[in-house]
Amino acid sequence: MAIVPFHSELETPELLTLFRTVRETTAGLGARLSDADATVQSMPDASPSKWHLAHTTWFLETLVLVPFLAGYRCFDETFNFLFNSYYESIGARQPRPKRGLVTRPSLETIFRYREHVDAGVIRLLESAPSLEVSELIELGCHHEQQHQELLLTDVLHLFAQNPLRPAYKSAGPLAVEPDGAGSLEFKTSPGGLVEIGHDGEGFSFDCEGPRHKEFLQPFRLADRLVTNQEWIEFIADGGYRKPLLWLSEGWAKVRSEGWTTPLYWEERDRTYWTMTLRGAQPIDPAAPVCHVSYFEADAFANWAQRRLPTESEWEYTASEVPEEGNFLDSERLRPRPAPAATDGLRQMFGDVWEWTRSSFSPYPGFRLTGGAIGEYNAKFMCGQFVLRGGSCVTPASHIRRTYRNFFPPDARWQFSGLRLAEDA
Amino acid sequence: MAIVPFHSELETPELLTLFRTVRETTAGLGARLSDADATVQSMPDASPSKWHLAHTTWFLETLVLVPFLAGYRCFDETFNFLFNSYYESIGARQPRPKRGLVTRPSLETIFRYREHVDAGVIRLLESAPSLEVSELIELGCHHEQQHQELLLTDVLHLFAQNPLRPAYKSAGPLAVEPDGAGSLEFKTSPGGLVEIGHDGEGFSFDCEGPRHKEFLQPFRLADRLVTNQEWIEFIADGGYRKPLLWLSEGWAKVRSEGWTTPLYWEERDRTYWTMTLRGAQPIDPAAPVCHVSYFEADAFANWAQRRLPTESEWEYTASEVPEEGNFLDSERLRPRPAPAATDGLRQMFGDVWEWTRSSFSPYPGFRLTGGAIGEYNAKFMCGQFVLRGGSCVTPASHIRRTYRNFFPPDARWQFSGLRLAEDA
Amino acid sequence: MAIVPFHSELETPELLTLFRTVRETTAGLGARLSDADATVQSMPDASPSKWHLAHTTWFLETLVLVPFLAGYRCFDETFNFLFNSYYESIGARQPRPKRGLVTRPSLETIFRYREHVDAGVIRLLESAPSLEVSELIELGCHHEQQHQELLLTDVLHLFAQNPLRPAYKSAGPLAVEPDGAGSLEFKTSPGGLVEIGHDGEGFSFDCEGPRHKEFLQPFRLADRLVTNQEWIEFIADGGYRKPLLWLSEGWAKVRSEGWTTPLYWEERDRTYWTMTLRGAQPIDPAAPVCHVSYFEADAFANWAQRRLPTESEWEYTASEVPEEGNFLDSERLRPRPAPAATDGLRQMFGDVWEWTRSSFSPYPGFRLTGGAIGEYNAKFMCGQFVLRGGSCVTPASHIRRTYRNFFPPDARWQFSGLRLAEDA
Amino acid sequence: MAIVPFHSELETPELLTLFRTVRETTAGLGARLSDADATVQSMPDASPSKWHLAHTTWFLETLVLVPFLAGYRCFDETFNFLFNSYYESIGARQPRPKRGLVTRPSLETIFRYREHVDAGVIRLLESAPSLEVSELIELGCHHEQQHQELLLTDVLHLFAQNPLRPAYKSAGPLAVEPDGAGSLEFKTSPGGLVEIGHDGEGFSFDCEGPRHKEFLQPFRLADRLVTNQEWIEFIADGGYRKPLLWLSEGWAKVRSEGWTTPLYWEERDRTYWTMTLRGAQPIDPAAPVCHVSYFEADAFANWAQRRLPTESEWEYTASEVPEEGNFLDSERLRPRPAPAATDGLRQMFGDVWEWTRSSFSPYPGFRLTGGAIGEYNAKFMCGQFVLRGGSCVTPASHIRRTYRNFFPPDARWQFSGLRLAEDA
Repeated sequence: MAIVPFHSELETPELLTLFRTVRETTAGLGARLSDADATVQSMPDASPSKWHLAHTTWFLETLVLVPFLAGYRCFDETFNFLFNSYYESIGARQPRPKRGLVTRPSLETIFRYREHVDAGVIRLLESAPSLEVSELIELGCHHEQQHQELLLTDVLHLFAQNPLRPAYKSAGPLAVEPDGAGSLEFKTSPGGLVEIGHDGEGFSFDCEGPRHKEFLQPFRLADRLVTNQEWIEFIADGGYRKPLLWLSEGWAKVRSEGWTTPLYWEERDRTYWTMTLRGAQPIDPAAPVCHVSYFEADAFANWAQRRLPTESEWEYTASEVPEEGNFLDSERLRPRPAPAATDGLRQMFGDVWEWTRSSFSPYPGFRLTGGAIGEYNAKFMCGQFVLRGGSCVTPASHIRRTYRNFFPPDARWQFSGLRLAEDA
Repeated sequence: MAIVPFHSELETPELLTLFRTVRETTAGLGARLSDADATVQSMPDASPSKWHLAHTTWFLETLVLVPFLAGYRCFDETFNFLFNSYYESIGARQPRPKRGLVTRPSLETIFRYREHVDAGVIRLLESAPSLEVSELIELGCHHEQQHQELLLTDVLHLFAQNPLRPAYKSAGPLAVEPDGAGSLEFKTSPGGLVEIGHDGEGFSFDCEGPRHKEFLQPFRLADRLVTNQEWIEFIADGGYRKPLLWLSEGWAKVRSEGWTTPLYWEERDRTYWTMTLRGAQPIDPAAPVCHVSYFEADAFANWAQRRLPTESEWEYTASEVPEEGNFLDSERLRPRPAPAATDGLRQMFGDVWEWTRSSFSPYPGFRLTGGAIGEYNAKFMCGQFVLRGGSCVTPASHIRRTYRNFFPPDARWQFSGLRLAEDA
Repeated sequence: MAIVPFHSELETPELLTLFRTVRETTAGLGARLSDADATVQSMPDASPSKWHLAHTTWFLETLVLVPFLAGYRCFDETFNFLFNSYYESIGARQPRPKRGLVTRPSLETIFRYREHVDAGVIRLLESAPSLEVSELIELGCHHEQQHQELLLTDVLHLFAQNPLRPAYKSAGPLAVEPDGAGSLEFKTSPGGLVEIGHDGEGFSFDCEGPRHKEFLQPFRLADRLVTNQEWIEFIADGGYRKPLLWLSEGWAKVRSEGWTTPLYWEERDRTYWTMTLRGAQPIDPAAPVCHVSYFEADAFANWAQRRLPTESEWEYTASEVPEEGNFLDSERLRPRPAPAATDGLRQMFGDVWEWTRSSFSPYPGFRLTGGAIGEYNAKFMCGQFVLRGGSCVTPASHIRRTYRNFFPPDARWQFSGLRLAEDA
Repeated sequence: MAIVPFHSELETPELLTLFRTVRETTAGLGARLSDADATVQSMPDASPSKWHLAHTTWFLETLVLVPFLAGYRCFDETFNFLFNSYYESIGARQPRPKRGLVTRPSLETIFRYREHVDAGVIRLLESAPSLEVSELIELGCHHEQQHQELLLTDVLHLFAQNPLRPAYKSAGPLAVEPDGAGSLEFKTSPGGLVEIGHDGEGFSFDCEGPRHKEFLQPFRLADRLVTNQEWIEFIADGGYRKPLLWLSEGWAKVRSEGWTTPLYWEERDRTYWTMTLRGAQPIDPAAPVCHVSYFEADAFANWAQRRLPTESEWEYTASEVPEEGNFLDSERLRPRPAPAATDGLRQMFGDVWEWTRSSFSPYPGFRLTGGAIGEYNAKFMCGQFVLRGGSCVTPASHIRRTYRNFFPPDARWQFSGLRLAEDA
């Protein structure tokens, strides 16, 4: 039985491999950035890359090395204040909106911090660690994978604020891609009394379980994501100007923020361009729409006379689809068009996070854990909607059918899109 | 079959009686107020009493008289702008936060407006109205009952801003009341596959249906509400100072607003007093705690190592309790202590609205109606939590087991409290 | 020698007459309002009429009756909290932005409060008061005259927020008025070493003295105010769209507030209308422009390739003009066109307050008085510009050549306009 | 006669020397910073160092090279958008509060930009430039000297936000300094009709002239600055808790911002420390108080029963003091204690900027210039107070008796202090 509420079954050698891979991947993501790129915070919701690089390291230092590695010496005592994210049980911290004011330590120092902690964790892993320690290290890896995605997401936001629209990666000629979203079909599911949630085999976050029964009405789910082309039609039909399509709060946001397109879109010579990790690029009509809020996804679904799926409908349907997709791939870093139609559901994993109509709330039987680990997810169960499936900047080994991502309904800087559903 | 999504089965004479009763009750509530009392808006979320008196009348005029009463002449064409609440489909309106700037028309004019519209509706009712018209009038009555509660809730907020703490009703010596909250018991329910939602017999709002199956785990529900005495213990134990008890957003609110007690509480000579419709009064320890937000209710439940019920758990349990309680009673206007313990659940109806942990979202199979009526509830299905059971200022004939009230998690000016639950 | 820093020479009978006249005038202004009109606060900078009526009374009660009338009983002890404006030395008070939440006491009670205090002051005046008492009562009269103007100014703002644009006075057919602004001339003054400020003969506020020498360069002053017609030309020439005409802060305000005309102007069928105390009225092209901010006045002067006068230039020039004008006249309540050209300066008194380019700051030799009286003016000597001459809602007996009114540069709800100047 | 409103008399070789010195000094200031240090913006009022380095260069490129150097090629066309400060006449620009989001171009690129422009200016200077060009280059030097001070001021603010309190320069052991503020004397001046303002000999900014007559009453000026020790007494006597000492707006700021000491002060073990360019340091009691706002300076003067001087009093008195002081000295970078008492006024130049009670407004006869140069000062003549004398981070060759610095009354991040005055 797991000691921490995040379940693990890894043998130590596997864990060591996971640990090394994750840490190297993160360092690789940071290596493309200048000290300035890595320091600036583009808005209160985003964090500097340097902070992501350091916070994930602090997490391992604080939860694993300090309590479990005999004789461990902290790299720098002040980092506990600088790089704690939101753990009230651990102590005071740099206020979130001021993370970008910390120009020292430098990016180079943070890389040294990472090496210092890596050495400690590896030492611990090589000394027959207890199950609790293994589980905490595995949790640290998954935690860091979340921050890999956030780092890229936040870098994109930062670079999009720069009038020069710099590229995180050089753009280069893009491979020709078949313009293939093709026809849209709705696949019917009979529903009934089904099981939802993680069953405890392998790693999961606490909020993914316990596995439990739910009763679903018959429903139908689109076999692919909504495309840019479809979104352009929504815009052309006045989607952003018709209050009756929108939730009340969503319409208020449209008005106060002046939304007329997804985030990052701009019109140049009558064509839409968008900001990507490769710099500004023309929109690909067949690719899934990305960087839309829940408010926009819901309004689009109303306009299409459909609705968003619930997270249970999504998970139940996904149970027959392999967890394979267009995940984090440093050569790509953007959503791809759907493959040509097949019999089954396409684009369920990778590509873009899919908004569901489900509020992020505890599953029946969920119990709050005490201490810092208990603060991981549960305290955000208010005012957030669940997204499923992972995106093109989610690490492939990080995603699961039961994975519950969550964001407030006005968040647009994530790689978020949508899939339509309807009652059967 | 109902033409509007709000179901009705009333014969015309019954409807006429309902209509007269509702309209007279509202007028009676307004009659205790001065022109100034009825005009001022104490915060953007609250509305002036004059606005409630006029808006409910405008609702009948706009949805019933203008389309269905031949030869009807509007009382004043400008009122369509002044008294539309949020119906985008009907047109422009006075911005909500500026409702309190409209000192003319006077309260007296609004009473004349009410009489003018009453005469029209009665004329229509006496002329063999169609089913659609009957249903719309019945909807107008239920809509007005909602505003009866809001009017009192908003008047309380207004008077609480006045350093003189005026009474809406003269206080008079209160009858001695047994201090009887008594012991607390948790009643067990086996759960299973149950039916939830309104079945279409009699009136209901659209969001109460359709009736549908849900699977519930076994659970236990407290047989009475949380009391002021229990809340004082929560305060004394540092409830408002321990971040780990709170949702992240809730804790931010505690800090930014300086919450240390429920709304309206103040300490005088080491005793807590609260503002009531009878003016400032000492707290009754045995009465249910009132004017707490969802954030506070959730933090209290964490502190008590319990949780809030889901709305399904509440509704399923309530199916065996008569819909009787401590409803709007102009002699009382405040929550009462629980009656001595009995075998069953106490204080399920009337007293205070009970926060549930359920977000306000559409039931399976719910369909959005077009037009103004469709804007009634669905566009608020975001960022709100469901409350059940009705309060001491809810009209008795207005409440139902299936009734879904909803407010954002930081709202405290409603008559809202809580009942604890736990997994069985 | 005066004991309070506000100089007085009135014999008791004169003072009694002044007192009665002022108090009756104020009561007359309030008598046209409903309880609701008198209670609502239309913005934080404005106050409810009820508050003006009560605050002026509280001023007399607190500074005169309580300390000097033996056996005086306060009308209501709670009024000290409710109606203190900003006197830190006197104690806590209702926060300014919440003055409009006090629906009780009613307007009728406030009128009774006024009578109670009037009786006390008259009793004191009839009992051979000391010089200090006389001076304080005289100060109370001048203080109340300031509030007469503010009351009308604030009522206009309140009524302008009402979509019905109600009239404070019935509009009635306006007398035919010659359209006479006529030609504009600049009158030259040689400047030199001049004396500025009040000499202590008769009443003045502390900030009007001491009289002192200043050296003025030669200058020229327009013989009349800027007209609505001239302002329309400024608008037509893009005045509100050219940043180079504006102070940096002023331009920021134009952008953030969307200013395109003076306050209260609206276009109806290609004609400008404005809100007046007689309701909405078409603009009179020959009347002085009114309800413009310092920012607008300064931008207009730049556009006209002139400048605003300093307050010393204004006062020095005004020393040869009789203090007569178009003052508070309950039949009129709006600025009038200039009389036909004469040899001298026109529209120096009454009509509209004239913005000067002088910041409100202490004259050389000015000394801060201690206590409540010392808070009257000096603590506002920051961020304000001086206005001179009085307006059509200033009481005639209240104005003086040396009078220094002051407001922040973005204030527009006062009856404020401008006169041009230039270097000679 | 000068073509631009900033007067110059320099021969080309002198100008070349000035140009080289200024540019090298600025580059030297930037050389101590990392790319991240130079990129982050710590608040909307401050700018990134990179921006200061680039903006001063852009100023030369835009006003000198583009119009006057034949064949000049811009270093990068996008810089016109990125590095324009507030010149509406030149075009659109990066919004001021978003200057810190521009992580690219890097600091290194900005240094290359500086070299590119330096080469151009030197080429122009070596080719017998016209008087207009010389004057513009000289203006560019003085403009850049202003930004040298701002760069250090803004770096200090940035580093003070970092919980690690990094030093801009290594602290090292400070030389022992005599604790010598010593006694305070007030020097009397008879006033009279005096001349104020720049006479056009040598460089000055437009707002320093024209020279003109003013009449001054007799006054007395303290012979040294107010010290930290005196400020500690003010704090101990409740200076930050007594509303009657403060301007109304100042008191509001004390309350809303929670001011209890000058900016950057913190208490550690009952001693005050402050943030300096050498990192956190204990307060030197004999050094002049620094980083106080006008509001604080004015409250202190009230507490001391004195007042602040006017700018004319200061300038008239300074006419007999040599323009020598404790100016920008890269070994020091902080205010020094006053030298032992002498017969004359001490600490008039260098040390800290001295708040005067004079609003920043145009001198008699001042004329607005058209075009970009005209935007330099005049559009800020509203809501600002004048400071005189220069500070320890002002370049020595930049200060003059007639120099008018100006900031809003709540600004504290400048090196600002005060000197007391009184009526004679």
